[in-house]
Order: sequence, then structure tokens, then C-alpha cells
Amino acid sequence: MPVPVPVGTQEATVIFSYIYNWAGCTIGGYEQSAPRVAWQVSLPFVPDGGNSSIYGLGLSADFQTAALVNGIASHANNYDDTHRDNPIHPSGPVLFALMAVADWKGGISGHELVTAIVVGVEAECKLGVSVYPEHYDIGWHITSTVGSVGAAVAIGKLLDLSIEQMQHAIGIAAVQVIGMHASFGTDTKSFHVSRAVQSGLLAALLAEQNFTASTEGLEDPQGWVNVVSTRNAVTEEFGTLGKTWEMSLNTFKPFPYDRIIHATIDGWMQIHDQMAEKGVTAADIINVTARCEPMVFFLTDGPTPQTGLAAKFSVYHAAAVALLDGKATPTQFTDAVVQNQTVIELREKKYEAFVSVEFEDGSTIDVHVEHCVGSYESPMTADQLKTKFLDQESTAWDATRAQKAFEYWSIIVESGDVSKVNSC
Amino acid sequence: MPVPVPVGTQEATVIFSYIYNWAGCTIGGYEQSAPRVAWQVSLPFVPDGGNSSIYGLGLSADFQTAALVNGIASHANNYDDTHRDNPIHPSGPVLFALMAVADWKGGISGHELVTAIVVGVEAECKLGVSVYPEHYDIGWHITSTVGSVGAAVAIGKLLDLSIEQMQHAIGIAAVQVIGMHASFGTDTKSFHVSRAVQSGLLAALLAEQNFTASTEGLEDPQGWVNVVSTRNAVTEEFGTLGKTWEMSLNTFKPFPYDRIIHATIDGWMQIHDQMAEKGVTAADIINVTARCEPMVFFLTDGPTPQTGLAAKFSVYHAAAVALLDGKATPTQFTDAVVQNQTVIELREKKYEAFVSVEFEDGSTIDVHVEHCVGSYESPMTADQLKTKFLDQESTAWDATRAQKAFEYWSIIVESGDVSKVNSC
Repeated sequence: MPVPVPVGTQEATVIFSYIYNWAGCTIGGYEQSAPRVAWQVSLPFVPDGGNSSIYGLGLSADFQTAALVNGIASHANNYDDTHRDNPIHPSGPVLFALMAVADWKGGISGHELVTAIVVGVEAECKLGVSVYPEHYDIGWHITSTVGSVGAAVAIGKLLDLSIEQMQHAIGIAAVQVIGMHASFGTDTKSFHVSRAVQSGLLAALLAEQNFTASTEGLEDPQGWVNVVSTRNAVTEEFGTLGKTWEMSLNTFKPFPYDRIIHATIDGWMQIHDQMAEKGVTAADIINVTARCEPMVFFLTDGPTPQTGLAAKFSVYHAAAVALLDGKATPTQFTDAVVQNQTVIELREKKYEAFVSVEFEDGSTIDVHVEHCVGSYESPMTADQLKTKFLDQESTAWDATRAQKAFEYWSIIVESGDVSKVNSC
Repeated sequence: MPVPVPVGTQEATVIFSYIYNWAGCTIGGYEQSAPRVAWQVSLPFVPDGGNSSIYGLGLSADFQTAALVNGIASHANNYDDTHRDNPIHPSGPVLFALMAVADWKGGISGHELVTAIVVGVEAECKLGVSVYPEHYDIGWHITSTVGSVGAAVAIGKLLDLSIEQMQHAIGIAAVQVIGMHASFGTDTKSFHVSRAVQSGLLAALLAEQNFTASTEGLEDPQGWVNVVSTRNAVTEEFGTLGKTWEMSLNTFKPFPYDRIIHATIDGWMQIHDQMAEKGVTAADIINVTARCEPMVFFLTDGPTPQTGLAAKFSVYHAAAVALLDGKATPTQFTDAVVQNQTVIELREKKYEAFVSVEFEDGSTIDVHVEHCVGSYESPMTADQLKTKFLDQESTAWDATRAQKAFEYWSIIVESGDVSKVNSC
């Protein structure tokens, strides 16, 4: 699997954003309880002297524990990056595995890190694209199901495994399939990702010691692809390795919600701004509607969330937050949204939205969002990404420390020893 | 889920065998390299002071590492027990999780252990029966896929989780689906079981700290049953809890092979005995045939195994071993076995076999095995089980120590603190 390192190319620039966007989400994710609970539960298994960073807590541990806890944090806010063509969040599974090992080993340079990121992300994304959407639609959480393989390949590259060892690493990772939609809206969704990565990490370490597995763990008739998907385009998709760069199809989230709902939120935020010009307030609203992809309801049909985490899977709460500028209680849409014939015709425009708010005086504001901010067509700018990073860090740190962290993470690619970012 | 503890009943007697048969397989399994490699790989994560036994090595570790290493050992020889109606090996996933935690906690009595075993085994077996055979036939290794749930439920019972916590434990365990047939014949097959149990164990610990998950992790439309199986009889099968005891349907293996091939081996062993009476030797054999269930070839069609582990998945090696009394090199059957029309008619007699050996003088010996030793109809006797235990221990220990270990394990149910078996 010869994958050239595209340092100095457009892809390398993408990687800078990969890394610090991931770091921001991870550090910011510690505002949630899930990574803290996982840390407490792990304590009996944490050996003395572990040197892998538990970022948001300013602590260190062995790298398996670091992968578990950081992994939960990095996905806890549903704020990490997303592949344009399917709902894989590529950076998390690869990056928190790599950083945990980089801290442990020491002396891993930024260029080595980038090589391993590219190899891991390409592997997990090719695998995901090969089985999407059937694999996802049946209920698998694709970020974690492909994440174990991505992490194994990335770590395998860092450990310089032989071809046969890498086959074994993939074989061991492939039989650990983690994550289902049933967990969405609970702590277990972010646990999927971190546990998948621990699995991939363990796979690479076992393979390094010549622990054997199927050498065709993905394509075997009773291996990953055929067991977990009715669609199998593995040969075709892996045939594009080094030609189509999956990481160049990455997008960054402006909102801590599943991407499917971003255009809708974008629309409500535009309406919020127009309300001021129009001289009305949220109190004047009598109805809120949206026409959007039916998948929005597949993922976010939670009318009465009880927690901040559950609210991340509620389109109703999203409307309230966007219209009221973050001070909302849950609001409801009409049934007309899901029953509207127009919704069906929107299947090919799944990231587009038409939102509307009706006021007491009988007037309405309508907004049509074709390409929302953070989409592939309308990507977040470097300034927006930096602001996103600093905003997250502000939940834990003062501005000086947050700015220092940004400087570390945004130039890590040039570092001779990436474990030095420990100090953040 | 009210499950009465059947101590003092026939089921309690079954449990005695469950426990020491499992212990024997675990201690004996350390003759394989897989658990030793897993131990070496785990060392960087083993905290000081762990008190869970690594049985075959005479060492202790934290209970997660103990579960990993003992789990690999317990399944490494494919010698553990099997449910009559599907290929689940019930005791391993539940027992090595429980013993690891019992060592860690201390003070767990034999009666508490039995309660937790019953609850865990019933849960995993009901789940397995609910989805068999579709789930298995697609390629999942059912022992490990249901084992994570069985382990979570067993540990959850030991930790006295509330109903909601137990739901969360099941929900966390259910999204970690581990094990595919592609790994059969490699170290990764036994890794499946131990990793699944680590997953279930972690699930119970997280749930104890109120880490949230789906409360319908099994039956949710996008939960375990619907994601991993086209057959779903969960409501029906769990409706028999406390009425049909799955553990009373358990069988013990006389041979370290998949049960599907036992009747065939039994037949060849009978022919071996008849050869002496007939005055011929293995050197006189010119042909060996068997008529048996086609699934034998699904699992054991390995004509030229290179390792002892691979030979456990070779029907050819089984023939050689049985006929030559353990001094064999791989032998071949004719294609006629799988092409024979009679095989098709044997689908309902899958554990039956007709074996035949043809000698140079033109004579043959034919044996028909309807119910082989170790089957539900012809179970292993207590003496045979004891001999099986002592034989395995003899690979590591002298006879006195092996006998002492048997005395510990065979009366553990009466112990006030099961962690005391550490000394073995």
C-alpha cells in the first residue's frame, strides 16, 4: 500500500487544520461528563509513569487509557470534522491513537505524524466509502466501525510494521466492530469512537509481536465487508488509493450537531439576524418550519431533550438555540415537515434547507440555504477555524493559555518531537 | 429480569462442571503462544499491585489484563464447553470476567459467583439462540458477539447494578460486536472472546458510574439484534427466561476441535481400536473417507496446516491424529465426501458420522457414530471431565499440583471467597 506523503501540497495544508481542529474538539470536549467518568473508571488500570496526555485534565496516563479518555472527549460535542460524501469523522480515530502513541514513544516528528495520519485516514475513508450507505443505514456508526481499522493502519505505519504484520493488524482490527445508532444521544456514542481506537491500537501492537489474524480480514467472504455490509466496493475504492485523496474531501463543522442539520441551523441564524432588522423578537414567533432532508429526523427527532447531550440530537432544540441566540428551551416543528412532498424531492440536496418563521403580525421570514457554512462548497475559513478552537478552549482555560495552545497545535507538523505538545 | 439461583438443583451440579472445565481449559491454554504474546503486549499497561490471577503463568495483574490474557488462554485450544443448539461456548466469556473481578474485589462467595454465572450465561445464550443461525452463517463468531453482553450482565449482577444501570451496561456492551469466522485458525479467534469480555466488563463498570447508553441496546430498531442479524426472536426467547434453562443444554468437549467434527474423530478412534484386532496398522491404509455434515468443511477444510493451531481447523489432520494415535502428519480425504448425495440427506444429523478406512488387502473397517462422546445425548462423565482437566494441567504442572488445582476448582461453589483460588 504505497501512499506518498503529500507534505508541501494542498493536502498538507488540510492536515494542519485536521490536527488543530481535532485538538480543539478534544480539549473542549472535557466540558462533558463522559470523558471524566471514563477517566474515573479507568483509574484502577492506570499504571504509574504513563506519559500520554489526558489533554483536558492536564494529566498523563498509559496510552490505552489516554486513547479512551481523549477519544470520548474529541467526539463528545459532535463537533469534529466530517467527510464530504459520508458521515465519517476521519481525524478523531486516527489522531488520538497517534498522539497517544507519539507521547508514549517520544521522538516522533511532525512529518512522521503526517505520514501516519494520511495512511490511516485514507484507509478508514476508503473502507467507509466502500460500504456506504448500506452499512450506515442498517444502524452502524460508521466513524467507529471504520475507525478501528484506520487507527490500526496509522499506528502500524508509525511502528513500521511489515506487510504481513500490517495485514494481521488490519485483520485484528476488522473483527472488532463498534458503534450503533441506538447509542446516539447518550454517552456511548463518543465511547464508540474511543473504544474502536483502543481496538485498532491493540491490534497494531499485537501484530507487531506477530500475533496472527486473517491476512484478508476485510475482503474475506466471512470478513469485515461481507459481514457488516450488503454493499461491497472494496476492490474498486481501494483501487483509487493515491489517486483520489479522501482527506481532501474533509469538511469542518461550525455547529456541534450532525452535519445533516447544519443548513437548517444556518437558516434559522439568518432569520435571527433579519428579525432585528424587521423589528420583531422571538416572543413574536407563532410558528417555525423547515423543509429539509428526511435524514434530519432519522438522527435528530428528539422533541424533549433532557440534557445538553440529548439536545445535540434534537432538531427542535436546534431551532430554539438558533432563533433565540443560545438561551432556548425546546421548541417544536409541525408534522408538515416530514409529511411534505417537497421533502421527498430534496433527497439529492440533503445539505440544503428552507426555513421559515411566522410572526404574530402574520408576516414571515423565509431563508433558503443552499450551501451552509462548513460545507465542502462553502468551507470554514482559517479564521473561523481558529475562532472555533479558541471558543472551545475558553470553556477550560484563560485566553492566554488558549492562544498558546493554538500556536502549538497549528504548527505541530513542523515539530521534531510531537510529544512536546504535552505541555498543553 | 428476575432469575432465581438454582443452587441445590440439577443446574447447580452442572455449574460445578462449568467452572472446573473452564479452569482446566484456561490453565491448559497457556501452552499456546497467543496468551503469552498478549501478556507481553499488555505489560506497559499493567499497574503495580493488580491482584487478578494470570492463571497459567502464576502472575497477577489488573483485572482487565487478566480478562484479556486468561480469555485468550481459555479458548486457545477450542476445548471449552458448547451449547447444544448452537455453537456458543457459554462459560468462557462469563467466567473469566467474573473470576477477574472476584480476585480484584475479594470476598465474593461461591454462591454469589454461581448467581452471576447463571444470570450471565442465560443472558448470552438467550441472545444467541434469538439470532441463530442467520447471525452465525453470515460470518459472526457467536461466542464473542454474545459474550460481551453475557459478561456485562454477569458483572452487573456481581456489582448489584440498578435496573437502569444494567440496561446501560447491556447497551454499552451491545455496541461492541467482536469476532468473525475469517479469524478461525489464527490467534485472533481466541482474542475475539477475551476482547469481547473486556468490552462487557468495561460496560458494567461505566454503567455503575452512570455512563449512559441506549436502554434498548438489544431490541432498538438500530440496536444489536437488528444490526447484526436478519433473524430476531429476542422477545420470544427472552420470554423463556427462568423456564428453559440454557445452561442445562450445555455440553463438554472431549476433543480440542469444533464439535461439528467430534463424531468423525470418534469414528476414526473406534477404527484405530479395531485395526489392532484386525491385525493391520496405519501403514496398511490406502484410503480414508467420511460422510458427515457439510459444515465440517465450512469450518475445517484445511488440508495442509502448518501449525498446531491451524491443525485444529483441519479435518484431514483430525483423521491422521485419530488413526495414528497422535503421531500423524496431514492426510487427505477424497472429494467424494463433500459431493456425496448422502451428505445432503444428513443435514438433520449434523453430529452423526460414517467413517471408513480401506487397507492394502482390500478390506475396510466402517464405523457409524450416531451420538459421539461429549454430545448432549452421550455426555462426558465426571471421570472423563476430571481426566480432561488433569491432562491439560499436566502440560504445565506435576501431578500433585494438578490434583490440588482440581480440588480447588471443583468445590469453588462452596467457598466464601472465590478469590482464594488465586493460589492455583
